[in-house]
Amino acid sequence: MPLGIFRVTEAQVNFTCFAVPYVSLFVASSAPCADDTYIPMSSLSQYNNGSPPAIASSSRSSLAEDRDNSDDGLDRERDELLNEEDPLHENGQLDRGVPLKRRQNVNQPSFASRFLSSPFTRGSRSNTPSLSDPTDSTRNRSSVYPTASAILSYLNLPSSDSASDPKDPANHDWYVEGPGKRVGYDNLTAIDWIYEYNRERTRLRQLTADAPGLLGKVKLIADASQVWLVLVATGIAVGSIAAGIDVASDWMGDLKQGVCSNVQLGGRFYLSRPFCCWGTESYAQCQDWRTWSMRLGVSNKGGSYVIEYIFFVCLSVLFASCASLLVNRFSLYAKQSGIPEIKTMLGGFVIRRFLGAWTLLVKSLGLCLAVASGMWLGKEGPLVHVACCCANLFMKIFDGINGNEARKRETLSAAAASGISVAFGSPIGGVLFSLEQLSYYFPDKTMWASFVCAMVAAVTLQAFDPFRTGKLVLYQVTYHSGWHAFELVPFAVIGIIGGLYGAMFIKLNMRINRWRASSSNPFNTHPVLEVMVVALLTALISFPVTFLRAQSSELVEYLFAECRDINDDYLGLCKAGIGNTGVIFILLISALIGFVLATITFGLQIPAGILLPSMAVGALYGRVIGLIVEVWQREHPFFIAFASCEPDMPCVTPGTYAVVGAASALAGTTRMTVSIVVIMFELTGALTYVLPIMIAVMLSKWVGDAFGKKGIYESWIQFQGYPFIDNKDDAAVPDVPVGQIMMRFEALVCIPATGHTIETLRALLQEHRFRGFPVIDADRESLLLGYISRTELTFALNTADSSTMPATTQCFFQHSEGADPSTTLDLRPWMDQTPITLSARSSLQLTKDMFEKLGLRNVLFTDKGMLAGLLTKKDLWFVLEEEEDGRLVGEWSGVLNQRNHGQG
Amino acid sequence: MPLGIFRVTEAQVNFTCFAVPYVSLFVASSAPCADDTYIPMSSLSQYNNGSPPAIASSSRSSLAEDRDNSDDGLDRERDELLNEEDPLHENGQLDRGVPLKRRQNVNQPSFASRFLSSPFTRGSRSNTPSLSDPTDSTRNRSSVYPTASAILSYLNLPSSDSASDPKDPANHDWYVEGPGKRVGYDNLTAIDWIYEYNRERTRLRQLTADAPGLLGKVKLIADASQVWLVLVATGIAVGSIAAGIDVASDWMGDLKQGVCSNVQLGGRFYLSRPFCCWGTESYAQCQDWRTWSMRLGVSNKGGSYVIEYIFFVCLSVLFASCASLLVNRFSLYAKQSGIPEIKTMLGGFVIRRFLGAWTLLVKSLGLCLAVASGMWLGKEGPLVHVACCCANLFMKIFDGINGNEARKRETLSAAAASGISVAFGSPIGGVLFSLEQLSYYFPDKTMWASFVCAMVAAVTLQAFDPFRTGKLVLYQVTYHSGWHAFELVPFAVIGIIGGLYGAMFIKLNMRINRWRASSSNPFNTHPVLEVMVVALLTALISFPVTFLRAQSSELVEYLFAECRDINDDYLGLCKAGIGNTGVIFILLISALIGFVLATITFGLQIPAGILLPSMAVGALYGRVIGLIVEVWQREHPFFIAFASCEPDMPCVTPGTYAVVGAASALAGTTRMTVSIVVIMFELTGALTYVLPIMIAVMLSKWVGDAFGKKGIYESWIQFQGYPFIDNKDDAAVPDVPVGQIMMRFEALVCIPATGHTIETLRALLQEHRFRGFPVIDADRESLLLGYISRTELTFALNTADSSTMPATTQCFFQHSEGADPSTTLDLRPWMDQTPITLSARSSLQLTKDMFEKLGLRNVLFTDKGMLAGLLTKKDLWFVLEEEEDGRLVGEWSGVLNQRNHGQG
Repeated sequence: MPLGIFRVTEAQVNFTCFAVPYVSLFVASSAPCADDTYIPMSSLSQYNNGSPPAIASSSRSSLAEDRDNSDDGLDRERDELLNEEDPLHENGQLDRGVPLKRRQNVNQPSFASRFLSSPFTRGSRSNTPSLSDPTDSTRNRSSVYPTASAILSYLNLPSSDSASDPKDPANHDWYVEGPGKRVGYDNLTAIDWIYEYNRERTRLRQLTADAPGLLGKVKLIADASQVWLVLVATGIAVGSIAAGIDVASDWMGDLKQGVCSNVQLGGRFYLSRPFCCWGTESYAQCQDWRTWSMRLGVSNKGGSYVIEYIFFVCLSVLFASCASLLVNRFSLYAKQSGIPEIKTMLGGFVIRRFLGAWTLLVKSLGLCLAVASGMWLGKEGPLVHVACCCANLFMKIFDGINGNEARKRETLSAAAASGISVAFGSPIGGVLFSLEQLSYYFPDKTMWASFVCAMVAAVTLQAFDPFRTGKLVLYQVTYHSGWHAFELVPFAVIGIIGGLYGAMFIKLNMRINRWRASSSNPFNTHPVLEVMVVALLTALISFPVTFLRAQSSELVEYLFAECRDINDDYLGLCKAGIGNTGVIFILLISALIGFVLATITFGLQIPAGILLPSMAVGALYGRVIGLIVEVWQREHPFFIAFASCEPDMPCVTPGTYAVVGAASALAGTTRMTVSIVVIMFELTGALTYVLPIMIAVMLSKWVGDAFGKKGIYESWIQFQGYPFIDNKDDAAVPDVPVGQIMMRFEALVCIPATGHTIETLRALLQEHRFRGFPVIDADRESLLLGYISRTELTFALNTADSSTMPATTQCFFQHSEGADPSTTLDLRPWMDQTPITLSARSSLQLTKDMFEKLGLRNVLFTDKGMLAGLLTKKDLWFVLEEEEDGRLVGEWSGVLNQRNHGQG
Repeated sequence: MPLGIFRVTEAQVNFTCFAVPYVSLFVASSAPCADDTYIPMSSLSQYNNGSPPAIASSSRSSLAEDRDNSDDGLDRERDELLNEEDPLHENGQLDRGVPLKRRQNVNQPSFASRFLSSPFTRGSRSNTPSLSDPTDSTRNRSSVYPTASAILSYLNLPSSDSASDPKDPANHDWYVEGPGKRVGYDNLTAIDWIYEYNRERTRLRQLTADAPGLLGKVKLIADASQVWLVLVATGIAVGSIAAGIDVASDWMGDLKQGVCSNVQLGGRFYLSRPFCCWGTESYAQCQDWRTWSMRLGVSNKGGSYVIEYIFFVCLSVLFASCASLLVNRFSLYAKQSGIPEIKTMLGGFVIRRFLGAWTLLVKSLGLCLAVASGMWLGKEGPLVHVACCCANLFMKIFDGINGNEARKRETLSAAAASGISVAFGSPIGGVLFSLEQLSYYFPDKTMWASFVCAMVAAVTLQAFDPFRTGKLVLYQVTYHSGWHAFELVPFAVIGIIGGLYGAMFIKLNMRINRWRASSSNPFNTHPVLEVMVVALLTALISFPVTFLRAQSSELVEYLFAECRDINDDYLGLCKAGIGNTGVIFILLISALIGFVLATITFGLQIPAGILLPSMAVGALYGRVIGLIVEVWQREHPFFIAFASCEPDMPCVTPGTYAVVGAASALAGTTRMTVSIVVIMFELTGALTYVLPIMIAVMLSKWVGDAFGKKGIYESWIQFQGYPFIDNKDDAAVPDVPVGQIMMRFEALVCIPATGHTIETLRALLQEHRFRGFPVIDADRESLLLGYISRTELTFALNTADSSTMPATTQCFFQHSEGADPSTTLDLRPWMDQTPITLSARSSLQLTKDMFEKLGLRNVLFTDKGMLAGLLTKKDLWFVLEEEEDGRLVGEWSGVLNQRNHGQG
């Protein structure tokens, strides 16, 4: 089940549901649940931002009532839902005590099951015991914690290792002194980068320690080559998939207007129009291509128009609904572009099953259908998701990469580049896209890996050559003249329009999606129906407007071209005199329609990117301005500004305005800079126009930023409530000491180092559902000794149980003399004894820097060695979000304590 | 005076000099000093790596004898030397108490003096009192600390601000709680990135606080636009300078062979050969170009050869010696490529005067001469230095950027891209070069800034169009055929050769330069003579070998080209049959000679880059392999591997092998990856060959790395002893707790928070010359309260002095009740009360991560709030260097304490 979608019965979509605290808050998902009923996760996050008010206030009060029900509690509920969704659940693996929410491969599942979770079992979900059944809920909760063998496989240690016995004093000196042993991550939690890299180094050391000399070197090389194998395989796979999508979506897109049927030979239905008409001068002369009206033998003009209109609309809606149904039935994670989720993941967040094989399959098929439907969406963003899915699948072959969350993210960052590489035929642009937009941590070696992957993908696509142009450059344009100085003014205007477009698009799209997520949306529980309605609307509007009838990619190519290079002007772009004014008008209308449709479409339950629609809108308004300037110059050739034009020569090239417009719209929407310029350059090969493109991109970004710093992806991250701390935005951090923000010592639940037994610790875990507990000295009350996570503590207690320790066994977190290791439990190996600490008087900015740059999960604050407070990554994210929304002015102090957050 | 060069009298170049501790260690620089006598700084650093042994051991023992004489002491001595070199010294500004070693603009020097320090005053240096005069030395030492107004201008506060009075309790609460106030940086010290960024944020807040509303916004925009102005100006300047260097060096380079003198008109001597012969089919038909033998009227073959040989050699030596003299006399910082120094600077190190106007001027002029001399050096690396100089000069206009060391480095990172952009006509390659090779901290906004700067520079160069090709692409090649699968084998071979070449080059070059720096080098004190000898050798060898007679850039262009595209084969590259074998032989010889000459040349006292020579060598051996494969294929067309070749068509293109070879040699030398591929792609426009280039680059890097991880620039950084912590190399960090490394508490000099007076603190400063002192609680001995730097403490004491405080005034570092603020001195505002602390049991890796990612200068280690130790950036660097050299195996424990390092 995808992140962000929580099923409730239709009957339960009312406010009373939200007022019941904790247990029934979102657990309602289970029993008699129609498949189309859902509430987006954004409404979950709305208990923070208060919309709709009734839900927000009630849920907040419920949170206030129950101290334990922090966002931790919510997460747990989400987990349980996801858990219940997990097909392994039905496969009887639960009984073996496998941690379903965690790493699915811990218990060495079969090779095939690594790649495929079966979505088909989902239909039988109603047969499984419902989560609201308390006994089942308990069973789930106890199954949450992994077995010893699972942990050991996670730690990459042989099970005979001393690590299996936390009490053996001879062997765990590294652990006793160091950051402690760890268990895997829960779903929807942050990873600890430092720990992961540390583990990787330990693994490499073991690799050579096990086999010194030449064998060790060979082992190291074999280990290092794994990531290259994954990347090359990913590149080839992505290139092939992209070629497949190109061919399939083109064919299906043309199918809306007609079919190829060779007059002489019959058949050849499998050819798209360009291939069907290969070799002919223009589509009008093409005999093989037959529109539906021709096929049906309708010859009068009105009748054929109506017939074609009907076919167009019906097929559009059919394709769209198929795509949406696919997504809805088999993998909800495949919807939309996936880039916000990838960004969140790469930022160090665990989202299980987001990059699975089913997601890949559904997304690829769905993309073909969605693109063919002619809706205002693009395949570019989703291809990044497809690339990450491929990489994730190939990574599963190698435990060395798959077992380390940090390396996994590095590899995914690299693989993401191949998506953009094949989408735009722009390998360098892909690398920069990954660097600028997606990645959180992008070291140099990742850049090279990224480059290799992007190049392999591009070369593969070129080898398939789906368009039979023999070129990697998608929309090759060769302009016959350069630009003139006076043109910088219209280019700047285009840049400003781009910024305004981007800002408006984001604002409107967010508003629409907030409404979509609310209960006032009639399609709230029928997402497929909603897609069908939008597709119907799109098709109805698009058919009469020639420019919109074409596929977006075709349209962009046309708009970029110079009129004299267009042999077959079947869209009617190039006209002279009064016809030209008509073209300007139609282009303008098309741009407006495109804008509105793109705004509505982005957010539907269908694979849909926003890059190409933005480019198309930008190219439309860019061409409009280009045509206006062209007409102006032609009418007033002696106007002082046009002095640099040569007489009797075309001076203004409207196609270049379209290119600049596309770049400006992209910049306004995504707020990227370098990547866009490089992508446009690689897309068109127009190096001459780099300077105008740069100026437009820069102005667009500035204007857009004036209305709000967040691009469309960041806005979606915020909307979805993903805990992503933007490492690019420093201005938002208020200038306060972190002591005012942190969870204060008085409010923390700490564990004294001595005096606990297994029983009391279990009771503590039962009582408080925090993710971790600081350990303090038993004598001097707040002297900090370390930090122990919930998962590790639970695991340690469970392991101890399995031996012959009674529940009254004493537990220690510090060295205690005279303690008999056979009758007491030393928990130090599981405690992080060197947690990162900061002075409570440090600035919030420094704290954010620490979280960001070191990739921490939480920071403890001390004052002269005494524990003063705690801040988790989620707390920080929550505070920064609140601040940004302007809800925290003047009430910084103790914000977390007030809101009952805390303790990671 | 340049970094790394310390003048001593010739008489003092002996071992006894080094055995005298501290005072006379390098102070000897002063009195009767011949201008050519120098010892490179590398010999300073050799007290670490023990070569030559005699010096090393003696200097090490001297260090051991004197506890205070840590590297801190060395730095101070270096500073005094630099200080004495500073031309402001002679301008009488010393009397006004300006801190010469620090920010030169603190006292608002005149506009012109910001840009130009006068090197001409250097001749009169011998008239100034010598440093060995004790009174003068004292005067210098006391003048080291800045005045209050200087500090205030550094802090960007109006002088009426309460900050001028550290005792005003009402106004410095931010300081009292926070990281403390700071004074500027000494030369050759590390900067504190966190502090700098914090200061920048404070500055921006003040900017808007002073003027709320619209005016504030305008101010902010004006402030933000400064950096863009700097970058655009830099781009234009770099483009212009590069165009100038291109034209001048081409003309002078051709001058070695002849002169343009229009037969009809006379004159036109200012044209280089291509322009002189513009429009003619080949150089042979060119009437206007007259070789020297023609000019002198010598017509017989032998005589003309001799005449031309003599002219060639003489002019070569003349140009080279002029370049070297320029560098030697006016700006030693202008020598070599400058990239190691830039890398060190960008890593957060202060090197004053390295990017000054004189460096720029000398480097630009020197480059023309050096390139024209035909030695094996390139202008590409030095152009990066030129770009940084330009940016540095333009930055001086804006105090907002110039006053912040972190922002300065960001801007320099961005500007560096323009150097490579114009050098190779490769803007994106430039950005990636800066990202991959140079920069330490490269946020997204820097990437965009970098891109803008690189693009402006490229467009400017294109506008000047110095080669009149109208193209940005330098060596445009259009290959008529693609590559075949069997060619991957020779391409891989080329890659492996590239790696071997790089490794050998680095090893040999380091050995030569170690010898050069040693006393066994006869030219040790005559660097200009050494340059002349090498130039003579180069010219003597090069003239008879046709390929070497051409300029490197010309040679590379020829080697890249396909034979059928070469109209005028004046180098004799394209021959058939037996002649071809001769060409292969000559190419091979040329490659070997080039390799040897490049190895010798890199490190001379002349502006010299290594990128182009490497490319030339690579192109030579690449072409050799290409020719061999071509011959092989032509002789055995039916060999199974050549099955994919079309019959009767040229199958193998040797030019592509040259391109691949150049890329592989670059990769072997510099160990870059992405940048090289992008540069080669932008340089040649050959997208088809990206895959072979990538494979060769990858293999080359792998093979090279097997012989040593460091590229040529990193090796030079190590050789010069710059304190640069490589943030790309994690493998070198040993797996030990930092507690074993750090300077232990017992060995630290700490200040108790109470009980000191101004007098005792002064005495403490006198006694210990450390850069800073931890402050501990007076009662509980090692409880850490904060950290105070030497500079801030001195300044605070000095300010207090200027008011009416007696020397017996009590000083506090913590709140003390009943202390009268008028009769006691509260030093808390100057103390960092929230220093970054780590647990002493943390791993060394984590400590390195902290230094790297947060940009710290030092880290304090605590154990339950008690001070346990200290590690400075330099200590860490020292330890990592020692470890890498394998000198620390098994003796980690207390290494710093043993070697008397410490305390930053």
